[in-house]
This record gives sequence, structure tokens and C-alpha cells, in this order.
Amino acid sequence: MFVVPLIERKRDGGRLTAEEWSALIAEYAEARVPDYQMAALLMAVVFRGLERQELAALTDAMIASGQRLSFEGWATPRVDKHSTGGVGDKVSLVLAPLVAACGVAIPMTAGRGLGHTGGTLDKLEAIPGFRTGLSLAEAKAQVQRIGCALIGQTPELAPADRRLYALRDVTGTVEAIPLIAASIMSKKLAEGLNALILDVKRGAGAFLPGLDQGLELARTMIALGEDRGCPTTALLTAMDRPLGRACGNALETEEAILALRGEGPPDLMEVTYALGVEMLLAAGVERATTKARKRLEDTLGSGLAAEKFEQIIEAQGGNPRVLDDPAVLPQALVVEVYTAPRTGVVTHVEPRTIGRAIVAMGGGRSKVEDTIDPTVGFVISVKPGDKVLAGEPIASIYAKDANGAQLGSNALAQAIVVADRLLEPPLPLISHRVTKAGVEELTLTRPPRVVRKAGSRD
Amino acid sequence: MFVVPLIERKRDGGRLTAEEWSALIAEYAEARVPDYQMAALLMAVVFRGLERQELAALTDAMIASGQRLSFEGWATPRVDKHSTGGVGDKVSLVLAPLVAACGVAIPMTAGRGLGHTGGTLDKLEAIPGFRTGLSLAEAKAQVQRIGCALIGQTPELAPADRRLYALRDVTGTVEAIPLIAASIMSKKLAEGLNALILDVKRGAGAFLPGLDQGLELARTMIALGEDRGCPTTALLTAMDRPLGRACGNALETEEAILALRGEGPPDLMEVTYALGVEMLLAAGVERATTKARKRLEDTLGSGLAAEKFEQIIEAQGGNPRVLDDPAVLPQALVVEVYTAPRTGVVTHVEPRTIGRAIVAMGGGRSKVEDTIDPTVGFVISVKPGDKVLAGEPIASIYAKDANGAQLGSNALAQAIVVADRLLEPPLPLISHRVTKAGVEELTLTRPPRVVRKAGSRD
Repeated sequence: MFVVPLIERKRDGGRLTAEEWSALIAEYAEARVPDYQMAALLMAVVFRGLERQELAALTDAMIASGQRLSFEGWATPRVDKHSTGGVGDKVSLVLAPLVAACGVAIPMTAGRGLGHTGGTLDKLEAIPGFRTGLSLAEAKAQVQRIGCALIGQTPELAPADRRLYALRDVTGTVEAIPLIAASIMSKKLAEGLNALILDVKRGAGAFLPGLDQGLELARTMIALGEDRGCPTTALLTAMDRPLGRACGNALETEEAILALRGEGPPDLMEVTYALGVEMLLAAGVERATTKARKRLEDTLGSGLAAEKFEQIIEAQGGNPRVLDDPAVLPQALVVEVYTAPRTGVVTHVEPRTIGRAIVAMGGGRSKVEDTIDPTVGFVISVKPGDKVLAGEPIASIYAKDANGAQLGSNALAQAIVVADRLLEPPLPLISHRVTKAGVEELTLTRPPRVVRKAGSRD
Repeated sequence: MFVVPLIERKRDGGRLTAEEWSALIAEYAEARVPDYQMAALLMAVVFRGLERQELAALTDAMIASGQRLSFEGWATPRVDKHSTGGVGDKVSLVLAPLVAACGVAIPMTAGRGLGHTGGTLDKLEAIPGFRTGLSLAEAKAQVQRIGCALIGQTPELAPADRRLYALRDVTGTVEAIPLIAASIMSKKLAEGLNALILDVKRGAGAFLPGLDQGLELARTMIALGEDRGCPTTALLTAMDRPLGRACGNALETEEAILALRGEGPPDLMEVTYALGVEMLLAAGVERATTKARKRLEDTLGSGLAAEKFEQIIEAQGGNPRVLDDPAVLPQALVVEVYTAPRTGVVTHVEPRTIGRAIVAMGGGRSKVEDTIDPTVGFVISVKPGDKVLAGEPIASIYAKDANGAQLGSNALAQAIVVADRLLEPPLPLISHRVTKAGVEELTLTRPPRVVRKAGSRD
């Protein structure tokens, strides 16, 4: 096909027809359109954007490049959650078994760590034996049997997105809202869902830090989902600090297990419950927020959520003993305590610095082919607003050697800022709810204040 | 080298350092930077532009990727002319021998047809035996022996530009003023010139039709030339209609030969003389415009310019008999007369339609590897403003078969508009002169009115 006129039209602010997007993506998926033409077009899209119909056509074309999960004739409602990515975000590991234990099926495709952010697949693979590479048929059978599968993007699902994503990653065309939305939604909409809940991160540690960007991304994804018959709701949540305390693959998996046992940190639980409420409402298994919230709390408190995670781990080849004994997880060789450099108030726990340090310490990838060390990371027991005393332990560093520990210590010295007082409040933990009807500001949801005794260690 | 941060910086409106441009182009010339990254960067440049220092660094890097012609120790002044391209523009074929016959050396690298425009190399190669693929060493020896060589862009000259140009052509990144300027100037500045004269086309048939764009391109190239010690002057000339009468390779070569024998159409001669005056002044062989003009007219009138072209053709392997007998040029198999569809005034002779028709008739390339038929094209004897009678012959169509003639006839029916009266005057033939000192509007130069008897044929 003759691509140059399409590139020129987009460059000059015009639009491509649905047929053009469809043909272009089909040819690209078959490597009949060269990468250099697609790269030029993607950069033009970064500047010119996509109209709603173009974005829909692009997303449909990416879905059409692969197979779709189909649950035809199966009455159980299916809902998934997607997060735009952050540091310390282990919500999926708690939320998926919890909601599945409430009778909603979760056919979840998850991602790997990207840039400074962690990835659910990497966290799951910290569990010895856990296999994320199920085929679509295996995933479907598992969802129908135990209500949940946690898998990677198989080559069967939206393969055009895989090719496009890899190209965007090396051509400076990642940060474009329509391209982000099409990439996420092409995978999610191929899962055969009844509804989708989005966790759109905002703040310094998010890929799109600004509130306006987050809202635009949410609206764009919601329009895509709704237009394709998949009711979609988004919550905007804070990523100006890590979520929970643990940052790093095995450490986060351990924290998720603690959460499923009722010992999760308050901010992690708050985000998990808020997303879970949306999922239960969207699935139609509950009709009121308060009842949905209570059902989630009860299910977690009863141990049924932890049991569901055990089933999932066992079904996917992992060692289910990890639920009772997190020491089954690989352990870091070097653990060091990090103490407050001065007395004062924590003003920042900067997530990008922390996320990048984990990559540098071996816990993330710089290149696709890198293998990662799941043991490294941090447990940070302070949040912005907490008072600390000089010399008080406020974090632990988990590293593979002394060099790594030094890297980690330097990163914390940069990321955790202690000053006389908090100059600006941290972002509200959950600030906005976005549906097809519009944006609702959740002024009542303030970051939960953790009552914390000075000198205590988590 | 790690290119993504450079792409991102340009995308976000920042600038690359001279060292970064230099390294990037050097690596790209060696195919160590992939095309898809360069394509994304070029598209970002289309939107963000280049600062003066960046453009200089890019141009220098492209020059540095190859060899330079050096005439060190040779006193003869060397000047070249470059046209931004149009339809019917055979000026180089007249101007180069004419100015060389006035004692100015012309080491001219010329181009091939591009899009709807013709190319000097293709016109020269219509002469049986003419060889444009000289090495730099051959070209230099010929310039020193007879004062002129007309060659193609050798692999030795700015090879990075060749690679970049080929990529721009297939990625919708041709129409960007800094990229056009860098491409032109990297080749011209490698020729070892004392001065450069630019013919910047404006109007519907130019690559950059608008006056503002033309002026910006002129200023950009002048800054590049002057910064590198090569005094550069530009004339803006009309390309809202073809230049001269002949359009098509062999037909244009024939018209150029007629011009060298004193029988050229007035508009072609006017542009040729105006550019020639600039070249003689820039070379320092004349100091006053009127004297320079007279010298050009005398040199042409005396037959010395035609003789110089004969020498060039002979030196480059062509059949020099073509000067006396243009029938040596290949001849079209089908020639048809095109007549005015109605009585009235010619309001348009649209160059793009004519240029595209020549390509469609086999006289240009759609792909680089296409071979062209030099015989096809048009001789159009009317200009906007001319009165015509219904049924009066106003053009001839030269084609390789009846189909081609039909294509040509359809194109002329679209391109040549006859109406009751001229609604807007055609562009002045030579409208602006641009130097490092600024822009001078040449209000006195109006399109020469050709006295033409109704019913006459050229």
C-alpha cells in the first residue's frame, strides 16, 4: 500500500479513514509496511492527535490483528482492571483474587515493568514456578474453572500492538494519549469483558503526571470502551509517592500477600477497595457502593480472597505455600536500614527516583532482553506528611550486593525529602471518578492518615 | 548511540547540540542508527524546526560524511546555481555554458526529476551518449580544462544526504524548510564554490508555493552559505506557469539549444539572464548589472555559449552534433496538436498538472528504479494573459502511443484554462532578490509580454 500520502495527510492535520487505518495496521502487522514509515506517522500523531473515529478505527484494527477471548454462553460477568502504571502499585495482586472471590470473573492480561514503573507479571514471577505465559485457551479454561487468570500479552492478542509498542519505545512516540489509549484498550477489549475499570495514575511518578493529561487519557479510554460495548469507568489515583510501602518485585508480592491476610498498608487497601467497588458495581453483582465495599471487606476478612490467590498460584504452576510463608519468595542477599537524615516532616517520597533505582539495582529492565533480580527494592515506611526523628529508621534497602545497597541508599537520600514542614499537601489518594457521564471530583476521599509511632518499623 | 532522548528532546521543542547532530549523522551514514529512529526525528523536525546553529551543524555533518571538491591554488572563480525545481525549468542547460563562456567556472551538481518537476540530469541524458555520472576527480579535471561540468550527485558528495533524502521521500518529511535547505546546501557547499546563486520558485508549481515559504527558504539557505564563507544570493521566480514553452526532457533540451542559438522564449531568457548577472557579479568578473547583462547577451549572440555547451557535451561523451541538429535527440512516436477549447483569455497554465501528466506518460519516475522515456511532453505556446480563438492550436503533445497522447490531451484540458478575462495577474516573473542584507522587491520586472499573433505556432 502507498503510505506516504497517509503520512502527509496526518502531518498536515487531516484524518485517515477507518478503512485506511484498518489496511495500514493489517499491513504493518504483516511487516509489509516498513517501520520507518510507521515511525514517521506515529510522530505526526504525537503532534496532530487522532479524532475519535480514527482512534476507534486504529484500536479496532489492532484488536482485529489477533484473536479475542470469547466467553459466549457463559453467564458469569467478566471485568478487568488496568492501571496506567506507577511505583509500588501491587493492586492487581490483591484486587484480582479479591474480586474473583466475590463471584466476578477476571481474565486479566498484565504487563511487565516499563521505564521506572514495575509490572504485575514481574511481581507474579517472583513466586517460584509461577507461569504467566498461558495460551488464550488455557487462560479461558482457568477463568471458567476458578474465576481468574493472570497472564501476559500472548502473541495471539493484538499482535499489531506488540509491534507498534516496540517501535514506539525506540522512536520517542510513547507519550501520546491516543496511542497510549489504543494500546491499552486493544488488549483489554480483546478479553471478552462485560466492563473495564481503569486506575489512571497522576503525579510525578505517573507517565502522564498532569491532572489534565490524566483526565484526557481517562476520557479517551472510556470513549473507546463505551463505543465498543464495554462500559468503562476510571478512578484517578495519586502517584506523587509510591503506593503502599514495598517497592520491588518480590517485596511487593509479599506486601500483596500481607494485604490479602488483612495486614495491608492503608493506602494500598483504600485504592484496592475503591477499584473493587467499581468492579462489583460494573459486574452487576452489587448495586450500592456501601454494600459492595462491605462485601469486599468481608471476603478479604474471611480469608476467601487469600484462598483464591492460592488457587490461582497453584493453577499457574506457582508454589501456593507462599500464602502462608512469604519466605518462599526469593530473598535479597543484603538488607540495610535507611534512617532519617534529620528531624522534621517528610515532604516528598519521589517515585521516579525510587523506580529508577530499582532498575539500576537489577530489579528492572533497561533492555527487553534483560533478566531481572526479583529480590531488590525498598520498603519505605514513611509517607509525605509523616514526622520523623533524625536517625530513626524509615526504610529498608534490599540489594544483591554492597554496591546495590549503596545505589539504593543514594537514591533514598534523593527521593525522601525531610524539611521543617510540608509546603504543599500530597495529592488526594483517589481524586476523580470518570464515567461516560463525566468527571466527578471525590473531595471526600483524603489520603488516609496512618497513625504511626515514631521509631516503629514496618 | 542512544537516540531516543534526542528524538524526545526535539519532539518537546528542545535543541540538539552540534556534537549530537554531528554524531547522529555520522552514525546514520554508516547505518548504525536505524531508519525508523531517523524517520521519527525528521518528523519531529517538520513540526519543531531547527535553530540556526542546529541547521548549521546538520549541514556540516552531511558535508563531512563525504568528500569535497577542492580547487586550491586555482584562481578562476567558481560559482554555481541551484533551482528549487519546477516545470519547464531548463535554465541550467543554457546558463551553465553561457556563464562558463564568460570565464566563470561552473562545477554544477544537478538532480533528477522529483515529483511533478523535471531534473537537469534527465534532460542532459536525453542527448545520446551524455554521461552525468562523472567521479569528482573527473569533474574537477573537466572544470579546470573547459570551465564547466554538469554531473549527478556522486556517492562521494554528502552521502549522508543521499540516505536522508531517500528516507524523507518515503516518510512524508520532504516539505520542511530546514531539511530542504540542509539537503541543498550540503551538496552545493561541498563543490568548492566562491559563490552560489539560488533560483527559488514560488507559485502553484513550486514545492513551497507561498511567498513567505519561498522567502524563508531563501533566507535559510543564504544564512547557511554565508556562515560557511560562500556568499549566497537568491532570486524568487514565478512557477505559477511553466517556464518557457517546452515541458519534457528531450523537448526541454531542444528548447535550451534553441535558446543558446538566440531563439529562446522571452521568459526563459529573462530568468537565465537575471541569474547569469548575479553569477557574474558574485564571481567578480563584472561589477555592474547592466555591463554583466550586456556581456551575457553578447556571449550568447556571438555563439560562444553554444560552443561551450558543445564542448561540455563532447567532454561528457554526448553527441555534440545536437547543437546543429536537434533531431539527433530522440523523437516522440506520436505528436498531436492541442487546440483552444473556446475563444477567450488563457487564465491558467497549471504546472503541477502538466508535470504529473509527463510522469504518467512515461517521462518521469514514480519509483527510483523507473526508466524514463525522454521523448514525451508538451510544447505549450500560450501563457496566462494570452488571447486565443476557439480551435486555434495552442500546444503540441508528444507521446509514445495513442494512450499517452490521450493522457496528455486530458491533462492539458485541465491545466490550460480559457475564460472571458484574466481575474488575477500571473506572478511577476522575477519578484524578489534576497541577500544576507535582506529582501529587495523587484517591482520593475514584470512578466515579459510576448507579442504573439493569434493562430501562429511556435
